[in-house]
Amino acid sequence: MTRTVIESKTKTVTIGFDEPFCVIGERINPTGRKKLAAELELDDFSTVEKDALEQVACGAMVLDINSGAVFANKMAEDPRYADNNFVEPPLMKSLVEKVQALVDVPLCIDSSVPGALEAGLEAAEGRPLLNSVTGEEERMELVLPLVKKYNVPVVAISNDDTGISEDPDVRFAVAKKIVERAADFGIPAHDIVVDPLVMPIGAMATAGQQVFTLVRRLREELGVNTTCGASNVSFGLPNRHGINAAFLPMAIGAGMTSAIMNPVRSVEMEAIRAANLLMNHDANGGEWIKFSRVLDAVKEGATFAEASKSAAASGSGRGGRRRRRG
Amino acid sequence: MTRTVIESKTKTVTIGFDEPFCVIGERINPTGRKKLAAELELDDFSTVEKDALEQVACGAMVLDINSGAVFANKMAEDPRYADNNFVEPPLMKSLVEKVQALVDVPLCIDSSVPGALEAGLEAAEGRPLLNSVTGEEERMELVLPLVKKYNVPVVAISNDDTGISEDPDVRFAVAKKIVERAADFGIPAHDIVVDPLVMPIGAMATAGQQVFTLVRRLREELGVNTTCGASNVSFGLPNRHGINAAFLPMAIGAGMTSAIMNPVRSVEMEAIRAANLLMNHDANGGEWIKFSRVLDAVKEGATFAEASKSAAASGSGRGGRRRRRG
Repeated sequence: MTRTVIESKTKTVTIGFDEPFCVIGERINPTGRKKLAAELELDDFSTVEKDALEQVACGAMVLDINSGAVFANKMAEDPRYADNNFVEPPLMKSLVEKVQALVDVPLCIDSSVPGALEAGLEAAEGRPLLNSVTGEEERMELVLPLVKKYNVPVVAISNDDTGISEDPDVRFAVAKKIVERAADFGIPAHDIVVDPLVMPIGAMATAGQQVFTLVRRLREELGVNTTCGASNVSFGLPNRHGINAAFLPMAIGAGMTSAIMNPVRSVEMEAIRAANLLMNHDANGGEWIKFSRVLDAVKEGATFAEASKSAAASGSGRGGRRRRRG
Repeated sequence: MTRTVIESKTKTVTIGFDEPFCVIGERINPTGRKKLAAELELDDFSTVEKDALEQVACGAMVLDINSGAVFANKMAEDPRYADNNFVEPPLMKSLVEKVQALVDVPLCIDSSVPGALEAGLEAAEGRPLLNSVTGEEERMELVLPLVKKYNVPVVAISNDDTGISEDPDVRFAVAKKIVERAADFGIPAHDIVVDPLVMPIGAMATAGQQVFTLVRRLREELGVNTTCGASNVSFGLPNRHGINAAFLPMAIGAGMTSAIMNPVRSVEMEAIRAANLLMNHDANGGEWIKFSRVLDAVKEGATFAEASKSAAASGSGRGGRRRRRG
């Protein structure tokens, strides 16, 4: 049974075939969020802190920390800021420190810059997930030694030096290559979480079936856990939440074990919690019943984040088994 | 490739592995609908007619016609009305005639009374679906000859003289027995649509996984189409639509090809239309885009039935390829 263990200072999250679906919150990411990048440039972490608290309250079990910021003003003053190898390592350190001071969930250290990955690994308490290695030769040679050195699991994205293949068999072969290369470094398959790459269904009609087939093969033939950027499937189409909310249960039914996604969206989170129940990963429906109370509060006018936060605060959230006898 | 062909006077619906999910509207059923039974007792078909139009507008491709009424007042006057063998055959005939005069979709003739099944088969135009045979010896001996005589497909429910087994292997064996017995009558497997029986997840935590596994086996080993009473899975739990809306895509991903359900529920219909898109059964997303416009109208305050009816009337419904050159 494949189990990928991730840890914060005191909490353990296991991604696995017999575990509830692992929701990795994607919000802490300045790529494409200009306002957030501008705040970070001014050492203002208020949005990061708000996003950390909200995502955890809404059900994120792991938080992705992406340091891919462009500091436009600083760049104008100092050309070193045009280089992400200069910008990201200290930013990643600060992000990790701020977030883990606030919430006790495992982190996913996410950067294209190896120095930022290492800065995140140094700063993180527990056993974070690293995001990511690809099948590109240079990337494997840079990232896999870090994975081995810090003994952490890693997200493996199934593209390589030839790019992203539209052929799912090629994407499977790339994933297999990464798993084999990792083994050369002494990294076990259960520490590789493969992202088989979800294409937009609007651009490629077979995108859904590709993922469902790939996830089954990755699980059965390579014995690895899987993840994805779930919302990509609905790119360019109307009513994206409706597509995402069907895609996630279908992917879970096919064997997908995690996703990097926005947990502050009740429609998608409802679909995941229902899928957990239907996969027999929610004993006695306890989580579903609690979540239904949050949805009731949303129907009465609360935002999903507010309702989730007040449910968590009142102890009717996910804290039951963590309570101590007073 | 398994294809179950059902027909109305002029329209053909195919249930199949490569077809959009077949939604069989369940509303025309006086069982447990006292007001409807009371109307029918007075020869009032207004609710039946409203339900027929609404269900088709909302996306039902087939309409189930169930004649299981109890006529309490007539029973008090005439003891023959205590016998459903007396009540149902003429009622089924009337129901079929009223509905097919109003909407041109295939029907599903649904009764526990053999005489009512035959009355429905006589009255129906085209090639209706018969609902149902079970693995009970007496039922097979009564129903399969009708299936053969009228050359129609039949729903096969996987319970037998020992009742409904909680063991999915037993339910599979019952389905296999029905398929084999049907073959003895000269009825091909593609004319059997197996209902593997969906248990409430609140009472049996493995109910979802049982269905997903059974559907795959039924498809791969027996080559049959499948159906279910989808809403049963959420019985007794809060926020049932949320569970149903995850169950349907998961079942479709596992290979389920139809369901007997209430199509006048936007949440479930949205999940099915998204699953069709994700299974590559909605060319260019055309149906999804049209359906999104209906959802937009619902957001602006229309009921789902109203919005669906006006979309259908404006020709933006499902009629694209049926349009004639003027």
